[in-house]
Amino acid sequence: MPELAYVNGNIMEIGSAVVPIEDRGYQFGDAVYEFIASYNGKMFFMEEHLDRLMRSMQGLAFPPMDRGEIRNAVLTLFEKAQIPRAGLYIQISRGVSVRNHPFPEAARVQFIMTIRPVEEKPKAMREKGASAITVEDIRWGRCDLKTVQLLPNVLAKQKAVEAGAFDAIFVTSEGIVREATSSNLVIVKNGTLVTHPLTPNILPGITRFVVLALCKELSIPVEERFFTTDALYGADEAFLTGTVTEVLPIVTVDGKAIGDGLVGPVTRRLYAALRQRAGA
Amino acid sequence: MPELAYVNGNIMEIGSAVVPIEDRGYQFGDAVYEFIASYNGKMFFMEEHLDRLMRSMQGLAFPPMDRGEIRNAVLTLFEKAQIPRAGLYIQISRGVSVRNHPFPEAARVQFIMTIRPVEEKPKAMREKGASAITVEDIRWGRCDLKTVQLLPNVLAKQKAVEAGAFDAIFVTSEGIVREATSSNLVIVKNGTLVTHPLTPNILPGITRFVVLALCKELSIPVEERFFTTDALYGADEAFLTGTVTEVLPIVTVDGKAIGDGLVGPVTRRLYAALRQRAGA
Repeated sequence: MPELAYVNGNIMEIGSAVVPIEDRGYQFGDAVYEFIASYNGKMFFMEEHLDRLMRSMQGLAFPPMDRGEIRNAVLTLFEKAQIPRAGLYIQISRGVSVRNHPFPEAARVQFIMTIRPVEEKPKAMREKGASAITVEDIRWGRCDLKTVQLLPNVLAKQKAVEAGAFDAIFVTSEGIVREATSSNLVIVKNGTLVTHPLTPNILPGITRFVVLALCKELSIPVEERFFTTDALYGADEAFLTGTVTEVLPIVTVDGKAIGDGLVGPVTRRLYAALRQRAGA
Repeated sequence: MPELAYVNGNIMEIGSAVVPIEDRGYQFGDAVYEFIASYNGKMFFMEEHLDRLMRSMQGLAFPPMDRGEIRNAVLTLFEKAQIPRAGLYIQISRGVSVRNHPFPEAARVQFIMTIRPVEEKPKAMREKGASAITVEDIRWGRCDLKTVQLLPNVLAKQKAVEAGAFDAIFVTSEGIVREATSSNLVIVKNGTLVTHPLTPNILPGITRFVVLALCKELSIPVEERFFTTDALYGADEAFLTGTVTEVLPIVTVDGKAIGDGLVGPVTRRLYAALRQRAGA
């Protein structure tokens, strides 16, 4: 089960994988990414991740890239690594060029990947739930594109860690709850799931999409609408959705218990359904 | 006059300078930068650029770095390159580590530089002035830190280029004028300079600082306050300030002439004073 990297067609050890310093991903954050997980040797919702990758690139007007070529490279790396429960990271930048803000005329996109075993969340966190803090959402206005403009996410996550919490939840200055630093956020109130609608301010999460589809199958009502920190504090249940977080219960926010402070029945049900869907 | 790169203590050709793909600058935009210009073989306001670099690193809680060591590296590269009118780019990232949002425990900062001749703005642009468009400011909330979170700047500058303009000016949804994609913006009305105050929403530009100091010496009144697009359209003069733009007249915005559409007397005077101060 080797951890491997891929750089523009070549597979190597991660430690020896490099990019030029004038890669625009490095100097401008001019790059998009995806993170795909596998369960028991099968990539989960890979096509949806590739769809989003293509959308992110289109949203930034990257030179066109062949989807099939990306797909082949992903599968080749996955096969070579032979990691049944893998986390595969893809990053594509606009290319290498003398530093200058406008799009370069002749640059070719840079395509890198890494693959490693997924770092599972601790069992205790899944069973007892995790804590979160709220932070002001100071991110840029296109969080629907999965780019490496992630410094505010880094700073928020670090703040959470320093506060002894698992994650930070972005809230606007008007009190609208957006999402966490690398997961979407869902609350449950009176049996209904509530989550932020798809706007330029949140990531259209693949796991969010899967969970909403599971709700339909399980006849759990869903409302995609804005909600405030007060609604979050007053929710019966709250959980994060993401490729690695899967469905992760949040039982305290800013030190306040959500519901009775225990993992709720809707969260449990959706986690089980997601794991089943993933073939875990 | 060789163009050179520097990577963590080593000097080499730019084309062979690389960083690991898991440099946090590449995967999170977790990096700060500076751009210093020289005139006739002397670095201009280098200490102020280094001050700001240290401030940006502190603002992101980077591991402490020795200012004298950075200064020595800058001067060594500058001396080696022997480019009288050089543009020296510095970038420092939080380090290399397995991808994970929180600050890594053990990572060492990555320090890279490039040096090249400055690409001067065309003479005609200096004499006749440049055009700009306005775009909505969708950048993150810490533009006072000089980080590589520059994708909105890239997209705005590209939009300007495609519109046949020189640059784009960021304006909030409420109509407050911030700054351009890599320069501060100043307007002149009835002989008074007006520019955005120092807040987390604009870069504390070194050239902005020098120009305001020159205004004091030349008894030109200055107001640091918010102003709207209407005030911009109705200004007598407008200009950009920046390390490479220096003092660059903006004579049309969104197709509207600023003042009489010619380069104004205050702009001319400040450009001459800046060039003199720089020893150009």
